[in-house]
Amino acid sequence: MSPLDDPSVRPLRVAVLGAGIVGIEVLRLLQEEREDLAQRVGAPLEVIGISVRDRGKDRGEHVDPSLLTEDAEALVREADLVVELMGGIEPARTLLLEAMRGGASVVTANKALLAQDGVELYEAADAAGVDLHFEAAVAGAIPLVRPIRESLAGDRIQRVLGIVNGTTNYILDAMTRTGADFAAALARAQELGYAEADPTADVEGLDAAAKASILASLAFHTRVGIQDVHVEGITSVSADDIAAAHRLGRVIKLLSIVERIDDGVEAGGERVSARVYPAMIPLSHPLASVAEAYNAVFVEADAAGSLMFYGQGAGGAPTASAVLGDLVSVARQRMHGGKGPRESHYAELPIVPIEELRSGFYVALTVADQPGVLAAVAGILSSHGISIATIHQEPLVEGPEAGAVHAERAEGSPSRDPRARIGIVTHVASESSMSTALDDLSTTAAVVTIDSVLRVEGE
Amino acid sequence: MSPLDDPSVRPLRVAVLGAGIVGIEVLRLLQEEREDLAQRVGAPLEVIGISVRDRGKDRGEHVDPSLLTEDAEALVREADLVVELMGGIEPARTLLLEAMRGGASVVTANKALLAQDGVELYEAADAAGVDLHFEAAVAGAIPLVRPIRESLAGDRIQRVLGIVNGTTNYILDAMTRTGADFAAALARAQELGYAEADPTADVEGLDAAAKASILASLAFHTRVGIQDVHVEGITSVSADDIAAAHRLGRVIKLLSIVERIDDGVEAGGERVSARVYPAMIPLSHPLASVAEAYNAVFVEADAAGSLMFYGQGAGGAPTASAVLGDLVSVARQRMHGGKGPRESHYAELPIVPIEELRSGFYVALTVADQPGVLAAVAGILSSHGISIATIHQEPLVEGPEAGAVHAERAEGSPSRDPRARIGIVTHVASESSMSTALDDLSTTAAVVTIDSVLRVEGE
Repeated sequence: MSPLDDPSVRPLRVAVLGAGIVGIEVLRLLQEEREDLAQRVGAPLEVIGISVRDRGKDRGEHVDPSLLTEDAEALVREADLVVELMGGIEPARTLLLEAMRGGASVVTANKALLAQDGVELYEAADAAGVDLHFEAAVAGAIPLVRPIRESLAGDRIQRVLGIVNGTTNYILDAMTRTGADFAAALARAQELGYAEADPTADVEGLDAAAKASILASLAFHTRVGIQDVHVEGITSVSADDIAAAHRLGRVIKLLSIVERIDDGVEAGGERVSARVYPAMIPLSHPLASVAEAYNAVFVEADAAGSLMFYGQGAGGAPTASAVLGDLVSVARQRMHGGKGPRESHYAELPIVPIEELRSGFYVALTVADQPGVLAAVAGILSSHGISIATIHQEPLVEGPEAGAVHAERAEGSPSRDPRARIGIVTHVASESSMSTALDDLSTTAAVVTIDSVLRVEGE
Repeated sequence: MSPLDDPSVRPLRVAVLGAGIVGIEVLRLLQEEREDLAQRVGAPLEVIGISVRDRGKDRGEHVDPSLLTEDAEALVREADLVVELMGGIEPARTLLLEAMRGGASVVTANKALLAQDGVELYEAADAAGVDLHFEAAVAGAIPLVRPIRESLAGDRIQRVLGIVNGTTNYILDAMTRTGADFAAALARAQELGYAEADPTADVEGLDAAAKASILASLAFHTRVGIQDVHVEGITSVSADDIAAAHRLGRVIKLLSIVERIDDGVEAGGERVSARVYPAMIPLSHPLASVAEAYNAVFVEADAAGSLMFYGQGAGGAPTASAVLGDLVSVARQRMHGGKGPRESHYAELPIVPIEELRSGFYVALTVADQPGVLAAVAGILSSHGISIATIHQEPLVEGPEAGAVHAERAEGSPSRDPRARIGIVTHVASESSMSTALDDLSTTAAVVTIDSVLRVEGE
């Protein structure tokens, strides 16, 4: 007999907070898969209310208007299971804490909240003996939280490296395919719905950083807040950088990297690094072919080796799939009186400051096109212990546009000197060496501008 | 305080059945990660015994000889958690059933047992209220069972398609890279430890079929035994086939495909197909680049879209990683008095017979090199409703070896007629149409031999 037809089975009472794109898809799936979900859980999932800011708005056929409420607090008090899809910090944080204290298990897709207040939420779940699941908060439909939290629970994760923001991947991919500059590619992404009207959280890397903070906490059993993540976005990636990457057999991707670093006991033992920045990776790297708004993540663990996960990182239906998977898990636990995996931060590894990290670098300079400049630049890098892998110099032929841009600056100069562009790829060097080398370069007379500094990863 | 130092925490008693390559790695990780595992579980995991067939054999530093026993039955009676790594059907089946009846939760990597007696085991776990986990049984370290069982529990899976046998992928990859024939590539794989001395289970597709049966059961909530899986191995894949695939911009991979098929209410509604066979796939398909002994699996679900999982599908350490992940899960459930996901077969979808399936085909024929043969072949295919995508004919230049092989046959003939090879790629056609067309071709005078028939997938 189906649990839907069994009068002795009490339905589980589900509160849905928020009815945006993901919320509507969740409600659609709860309706369309009603029978299958009841079989998988062992009891029907009954939506008892949907909290929204404005009850009057039409939300289509899958949102029963009679379930809409503007009183989220009253709603969560009645629920066994709370699905939070409102986003933002408040009132989501307070509602979830109250829901858990009241004995409800929680499923959330709210990465910003987890990145800021994850520890408080995990501890509240633990104290109340309820479940807190958040697969949808990282890489949408791609199962990533569950594999890291559970499948690799007996292994030692060394590194998670991936593309976890679809908007920026769409923009960088478009720049690579079409040669467009950042502004044009962003405008196109906005037209197509891949970027929001205010794209700050995506293009400045903040969304990717929130996800990096969640991944680092899970992978290393250590509190890593968003303030611990070094973040650089993609707004300064130029069409020139994309073209230079192409010439170098590379492509530029916004990477989220979280890493266990062990420089030995004297250097402090095991530490954790979490960072987000655009980086050049070789065309042969599997992440290089991740196109459009897709996400892909590598996980490297001692015993498991390298694992890759690939799929849609955003969008209503994919995100709803992840939410429903979590909802079935917490509902099953509820039926069996148990509790799923909990977060722990027993390792409490220190965070490595960005200055101590090491990577390859790509540096682009505009210099005076005169003898000895290349040698001077190479000498400065060398004096900081930075060794050069490849170096490329070509005269800068300024077109009418470039001429216009430089016109003001040229006015003050008695004459327009010829200029050249130097592109350098270095071997692995420390951030601090590179930083002081860049200071020296910027005060070198022959160096007109430092146009770009990008990390080189995945070699 | 660490659970290792807390006298009020009772350790969980773990029995390990089997101390082969995977067992030794599991024991190593249980030792080396002892502190972390205790933190993640909330209690120490204490190995109380290791059952082996021969106590005398030396198994290295990670296997404490004082824990070895030849009495597996007595061992499982004392355990909270049983890890089964002995393989084979008996005595593994009886031991696991007894362990579960006695209240122990079970982690197993035994795909053959699950494919044959999975339903009995799942029901025993349910009846006893214990957990049965088996991530390591499919695709080694790659989290696949947990994502399908849990992450996608709120979604509707349509298809799982992948490379789940490392040995055959190694052999086909070697044939593709070096031009070697099957026998030479197999011998090399055996030398390197990628294939066993008796390679039957791998090269005949039985291992992949066991995994397909497990994946189909999970994905479609339907009993799919190994007898329901259509299986063809790779022993008849020739160097000619590999070369032909290359000319056609394709590569040959052993695919496991499980699929939900809905031909409408009149045709019986939703049904399930599970099959394993070598197939040509385009070079541009992501599975085409899966090299050596790696595994990769695509999962297509309604809401989540396409997901891909990639990693090491076999080997001691990767398999042990999956076993330990499961062990932590069942141990956590044990600590919290709950029970994890259970298998259900409520959907009970019928199995589609292979004859009713449809795909593209590659057919290679040796024919008499005379006018009209190609038209005759095309006519036969057309008369069975099979339309041709590409066709290629070339004279067969028989070298000294080919001459020797054909010598016997030639003795009976008055003269050696010139021959040609025809290679055909068809559009999608049904297995039954292709089967009758092949019957007709085999009785056509101008057709000397049907050399190969391969499916074409992933277009």
